[in-house]
Amino acid sequence: MFPRAKLLVFTALLAALAPADALWPQPRSIETGGTPLRLSGGFAITVAGSAPSDLHAAVQDAKSFISNDKLGRLVVGRGAVDVAAYSKAKTLSKLTLSLEKGATAHSITSEAQKAPEARDEAYTLTVPGDGSGATITANSTLGLYRGLTTFTQLFFYNEGTTYLLNAPVHIEDAPAYPYRGFMLDTARNYFPVSDIKRTLDAMSWVKINQFHWHVVDSQSFPLEVPGYPELSQKGAYSASSVYSPGDVADIISYAGARGIDVMLEIDTPGHTSVISKSHPEHVACPEATPWATYANEPPAGQLRLASEATTNFTAGLLAAAAKLSPSTLFSTGGDELNTNCYAADEETQASLNATGKTLEQALNTFTQVTHKALLDEGKTPVVWEEMVLVHNVTLNPETLVLVWISSDDVKAVAEAGFKLIHAASDYFYLDCGGGGWVGDFPDGNSWCDPFKTWQKSYSFDPVANLTDAEAKLVIGGQHLLWVEQSGPENLDPAVWPRAASSAELFWSGPGGNLSTALPRLHEVAYRMRQRGVQAISLQPEWCALRPGACDLTA
Amino acid sequence: MFPRAKLLVFTALLAALAPADALWPQPRSIETGGTPLRLSGGFAITVAGSAPSDLHAAVQDAKSFISNDKLGRLVVGRGAVDVAAYSKAKTLSKLTLSLEKGATAHSITSEAQKAPEARDEAYTLTVPGDGSGATITANSTLGLYRGLTTFTQLFFYNEGTTYLLNAPVHIEDAPAYPYRGFMLDTARNYFPVSDIKRTLDAMSWVKINQFHWHVVDSQSFPLEVPGYPELSQKGAYSASSVYSPGDVADIISYAGARGIDVMLEIDTPGHTSVISKSHPEHVACPEATPWATYANEPPAGQLRLASEATTNFTAGLLAAAAKLSPSTLFSTGGDELNTNCYAADEETQASLNATGKTLEQALNTFTQVTHKALLDEGKTPVVWEEMVLVHNVTLNPETLVLVWISSDDVKAVAEAGFKLIHAASDYFYLDCGGGGWVGDFPDGNSWCDPFKTWQKSYSFDPVANLTDAEAKLVIGGQHLLWVEQSGPENLDPAVWPRAASSAELFWSGPGGNLSTALPRLHEVAYRMRQRGVQAISLQPEWCALRPGACDLTA
Repeated sequence: MFPRAKLLVFTALLAALAPADALWPQPRSIETGGTPLRLSGGFAITVAGSAPSDLHAAVQDAKSFISNDKLGRLVVGRGAVDVAAYSKAKTLSKLTLSLEKGATAHSITSEAQKAPEARDEAYTLTVPGDGSGATITANSTLGLYRGLTTFTQLFFYNEGTTYLLNAPVHIEDAPAYPYRGFMLDTARNYFPVSDIKRTLDAMSWVKINQFHWHVVDSQSFPLEVPGYPELSQKGAYSASSVYSPGDVADIISYAGARGIDVMLEIDTPGHTSVISKSHPEHVACPEATPWATYANEPPAGQLRLASEATTNFTAGLLAAAAKLSPSTLFSTGGDELNTNCYAADEETQASLNATGKTLEQALNTFTQVTHKALLDEGKTPVVWEEMVLVHNVTLNPETLVLVWISSDDVKAVAEAGFKLIHAASDYFYLDCGGGGWVGDFPDGNSWCDPFKTWQKSYSFDPVANLTDAEAKLVIGGQHLLWVEQSGPENLDPAVWPRAASSAELFWSGPGGNLSTALPRLHEVAYRMRQRGVQAISLQPEWCALRPGACDLTA
Repeated sequence: MFPRAKLLVFTALLAALAPADALWPQPRSIETGGTPLRLSGGFAITVAGSAPSDLHAAVQDAKSFISNDKLGRLVVGRGAVDVAAYSKAKTLSKLTLSLEKGATAHSITSEAQKAPEARDEAYTLTVPGDGSGATITANSTLGLYRGLTTFTQLFFYNEGTTYLLNAPVHIEDAPAYPYRGFMLDTARNYFPVSDIKRTLDAMSWVKINQFHWHVVDSQSFPLEVPGYPELSQKGAYSASSVYSPGDVADIISYAGARGIDVMLEIDTPGHTSVISKSHPEHVACPEATPWATYANEPPAGQLRLASEATTNFTAGLLAAAAKLSPSTLFSTGGDELNTNCYAADEETQASLNATGKTLEQALNTFTQVTHKALLDEGKTPVVWEEMVLVHNVTLNPETLVLVWISSDDVKAVAEAGFKLIHAASDYFYLDCGGGGWVGDFPDGNSWCDPFKTWQKSYSFDPVANLTDAEAKLVIGGQHLLWVEQSGPENLDPAVWPRAASSAELFWSGPGGNLSTALPRLHEVAYRMRQRGVQAISLQPEWCALRPGACDLTA
């Protein structure tokens, strides 16, 4: 994590300087001037010294974005108003990327796949005002990649000219938090690999570094796990709705090259009804009715956590799934365990009677065995908050905890001494507010009403009510999309540009100004559209071209 | 309008019969059997007698949908479970469309562009169980077109076979209400012609017959009106964000061929700020601040209704715009008039002083003059509800009133004796629930929270609290999309399949059952996706394949 002392200096600098127009997330330290520069027709990006192939690919992508974004500046008249400023400007013909002296050129992918706290994303970017070469320097290729991403956001376009207005630019940047994530559920409804890749693209543009892939759930099992092919064969929605090991490797590679680590989640022991399709022996209360008695949503069904055979099956499954991703993180879920399901399950009751354990004791054993399988694979377990706040299980002290039910629960998780990831439904759930999806329920609204606006998540305080020691347990946060009412059709509109708000919150730190953020967030959305991501309009275009004019008190 | 006496017979029949699987809107009378039929490889659709070119085109489209929909039935196992049923079934090789004896073959377009009550959309559809030819008969080509639309929904697909399971089918159908609309705002954000055409396609599939095109507003003027080119030249977001007369003709023609009439709206005298860009002399309080004092949303600006010059300008503009569409309807808006704007406008005050009129008297004159211009063009004026409930203006008794503020206002409009269109924000506004769009307003939710679910609009009673005489004033209703937070990126997800709920409500009549509607609405969404419209998932696919299993009490 970026040192806090240095962070304070950056924040102070930030307040004193005008922000560059279109940067998102806002760099921690930026100085800009008022000199326009035109991009040379022969503009080149070079990497000093040897460079890994994914950095070379990233350079090609950056050149492509700079050429193809063709984003007119968001002012009345668009880029036409800048012609006078840029028409006689000097040209910028070169950007050079260099690692700091002594640093070794590992791949972006390998740097991104380190444990969150070990990721070095800091970079320095300089664009001189005299047209001499721009530079990005960093201690890692991952830092160079973050700098490249920023560099592409410096430019606007008008009638054949790509230009910037605010040279010289000097940026020193590094994230406030090492974990900046986005979670996608691919089990309630299936998403083709291409949708996930497009989402990874957009994530990288706002420097999100963690894809939390909630890949399976009670409704479907679209993941082919080596050694357990029957799970997806029987549990996917269709033979074509399966992520093969090749697909997973493709996604992980695509993510890695964009500075994103992929954390898989196999939610256990709840949210596992679909496993009964191939392994009825391991699932209690499969599709039991009324579903509301046995689960938070249909279909009911949970792993028989008191069964030694089921515990060993689960441990084997998790170990096999863990091998699919080089991430140091793996989530075993642990949310919404339903006790009625186990009370009604004769096999579970027999197991408990035979061992003399309570359900909680059995859960403890189940968790320890399954987590040991992950620890043996070198993974840090990640769990939903109930595993700390509701259940009485012994967790490895390095376990990361996802706080989801409410931001009110953050304090208790921190008091329990666990590192935590902000994922609270009251700030970061992208699916709230769209009405209830349960059938025959005409007045049903979503359980987590209202809709979470970008302003809501942007205004979140990651360390509210925490002591300094507790605050150090916060490793970051993320937006999440549960897909009861989503699919490929509305993935982009549901996520973008809203999820960019947490990306900036956890990169630039809290306390951002909503009024100055909005014009930049418009630019995020407009630029995403230019790049093929269907980010929605946050306001009428009239407002987008007139910063502040549609503020409540304007 | 379909005779009420006959309607009651149909409703009684409906209750006694099982619905066909995938029909939307539900036909008023349907009898089905249990005999499967396969579509013949040489399946042909023929039109008896001479037929207009748009009917021939509609036949080609229907054949294309039947061939290309390739929709697997929404059950566990999809179409594979039907193989035994259809594999030895007889084949259907022919559909014949015939006008009833004595009827004349006018174009679908001309039939659709009649006044709402004069549109004849009734048809009879028969698919015998023995594989002999299917037939559609109607009194008009518009009726034949509606029958064709139904026919395409009868089929499912599995592994090379297109089939239905429920022959013989006999449908007698006609709409409960003659006006079934959808409104799109193209002024807050612009939509390319292709987006509008795709929306018209989807509208036609659920038998919506009225496109209410709220084409201009305060933010932008994307309509080129012959004789008034300066309005769009100065008022469109860009030169490419303009609907030329050719574009409008294209849209009207495309709509007409799909049984849809296009009602243009030029909102007056409010919602006209953008006219100040080309005609500052006609606009009071243009872009005045604070905007909230002078308008319900930025930018402020209203036509100088007390000015004779402005009144004549507006009358001329409306007459010119009215010539763009052959529709019998034209909306002059009339919502959200702000009195502060006029109080602060010296020119308006001078006009009022000179004539001795009150503002309301001036509005009456303005309305009479501008509406006369429309009446002279053969149009029936359409207004938002304030023109009846808030202002003291004399309206032509044939004026149609759009009830938008609240469904609670329906009764008062009916009591005033006006024909009305249901468009209430509490049931039919598709933009509600997505959070506030006004800037610097972190806790702002949308003014019309919560999100309007399909269940909400589907459950609407069009004649609640009305006397029988008042109920006869209800000519139909519509969903509406205001686009402060929409654009091409989320048009389909915002509208579909939700807007299908009012399409069925106003075709099949109120009182539909939510539990039996949901599986059919899933099929609407799945079929729309097969046809290229990004209709969203209403539930996890697990639920879509198991009707009722995700009901609240299942």
